[in-house]
Formats: sequence, C-alpha cells, structure tokens
Amino acid sequence: MSGPLLTRIDHVGIACRDLDEAAARYAELFGLTVVCRETNDEQGVHEAMLEVSLAPAGGSYVQLLQPTRPDSPVGRFLDRRGEGIHHIGYGVDDVEAALATLDGQGVRLIDRRPRHGSMGAAIAFLHPRDLGGVLTELVQARPGQARD
Amino acid sequence: MSGPLLTRIDHVGIACRDLDEAAARYAELFGLTVVCRETNDEQGVHEAMLEVSLAPAGGSYVQLLQPTRPDSPVGRFLDRRGEGIHHIGYGVDDVEAALATLDGQGVRLIDRRPRHGSMGAAIAFLHPRDLGGVLTELVQARPGQARD
Repeated sequence: MSGPLLTRIDHVGIACRDLDEAAARYAELFGLTVVCRETNDEQGVHEAMLEVSLAPAGGSYVQLLQPTRPDSPVGRFLDRRGEGIHHIGYGVDDVEAALATLDGQGVRLIDRRPRHGSMGAAIAFLHPRDLGGVLTELVQARPGQARD
Repeated sequence: MSGPLLTRIDHVGIACRDLDEAAARYAELFGLTVVCRETNDEQGVHEAMLEVSLAPAGGSYVQLLQPTRPDSPVGRFLDRRGEGIHHIGYGVDDVEAALATLDGQGVRLIDRRPRHGSMGAAIAFLHPRDLGGVLTELVQARPGQARD
C-alpha cells in the first residue's frame, strides 16, 4: 500500500430511538449544529448529520440514526444492545478502489459495490467480524459538497 | 454557549483482547501507523494510538485498548459485549471549563476533575446514561504535542 487508505474520521454513527430528542441534546450540550437531515429508505434510517469540525481534507460529523422500521439493521441493533455507538465511518479517496484492495486482503465486505450515503457520499460497509467487532464504513465524499 | 464545545473527533476508542494483533490489522489493512503506545494503570489499559489524520486544529486517532486486568472498565466491557467500539473522544479547548459547563447543565460526570489521558492529554469521561448510551470523553491535548 502506498499510503494510508483512510484519510480521516468522517463520522461516528449513533443509534437512537428519537432523532429529534438526540439532535436537540447534542445541540444544547455541545453546541453542534445539524447540517443535513435525510431519510435513507434502503438502509431504513432517518438520520441527522451534526458537524464537529470542517478541515480542508474533509469534515467530521456525529451521525444520529433512528430506524424507520424495527427490522432494519439499526432497529435490530437497538433491540439487541440499546442506544449507543453503532459504527464508525472513515474518509477514503476512492471507495471502489478501497473495496477492491480490502477484498484482495480477504476482508469480508457487506457492500461489494458503493451505496448512497449521507450528504451525497458513496459509501460501503465492512463486516465487523474481520475488524475486531467494529462495524466500519468507508466514505467517499461527494465532490464539491460541504463535507469536502 | 458562545461556540461549539467540541472542536473535533479526537479518537474512537476500541476494546480488543490482543493489542498487538489489533494494531497489526489496522496497519496492514488500512495503512495506519502507531504513533504512541503506553499503559495507563489508573484506567487499567494498555493502549495504542494510530493516527488517521493530522489537521491544524488537532489529530484524529484510532485508540486500541486492551485491559490490564479483567475487572477494569474495558475488561468488564469485553466480558459483557465482546470486542468493539468502547467510547468516542472529542477535542475541547479547555476540559475544566467544559466540565463546569456540562455539570451546570445537569450532565452526569464520571470524572469531576481531569485525568491523565493518552499522549499527555487532560481528559474526562461523561456518563453514557445522559448521552444516549454513548460513553463520551473530552480531550484537551497537551500543548505542543503532535496531536495539537
């Protein structure tokens, strides 16, 4: 590998039961602002992105996730473990290239091809089994977006 | 509040059973480098900091944590939940001032005064009960250190 595959901590994904309440808490206690709010039907989540920092290389966010249905991945996580940290998302320059590299190293991929993520990003999840129990997301930010 | 209390995602803390194996995995798969390795007897952890990014405002790290004893907080976490994400650490400008602010807002503090953290930082933990199940750490980097 010529350089680090991961360029930054893009976000920490946090599962919650009430998105409005959680977003209000992060705003009130920590002064964080919701910069994007959307629903991702494919993943079964309502989500809010709260900006923590915005460096030239890319932003870092708290991503709050409320399931749209109980049988979604985040819904099952809440049932099993309760509210808390669900996954960690890292910035990459090229998510397809990163997936090919990791596939070649034998890492189990949840997504073999990029999917649509928050704020127009191309994202893919890696299976926690090969990564010490950590559900890991790769995030290639949409060019020209605020998170760039 | 005049501005955001949190200035960046400082690190994600990951509980593991074998620090060497976990550090080797992050190096091999993701190209991350261990920039600091130390033992914190007070917290009962052997730890390794792997740098993900280093912006002018401060670095972001993967912090791998292996318990020094089974009855430490990370040891009990491993027993209860297995390997995985243990906590999230955010940068603050002044950890004592941040604790005073959050105490005034009724947030339950695990540490009422700063403790010694990784790489010479002053740190304090907030209780997950008031924060949607997320064990949250405040990190004031040591002046002049690489993480600044």
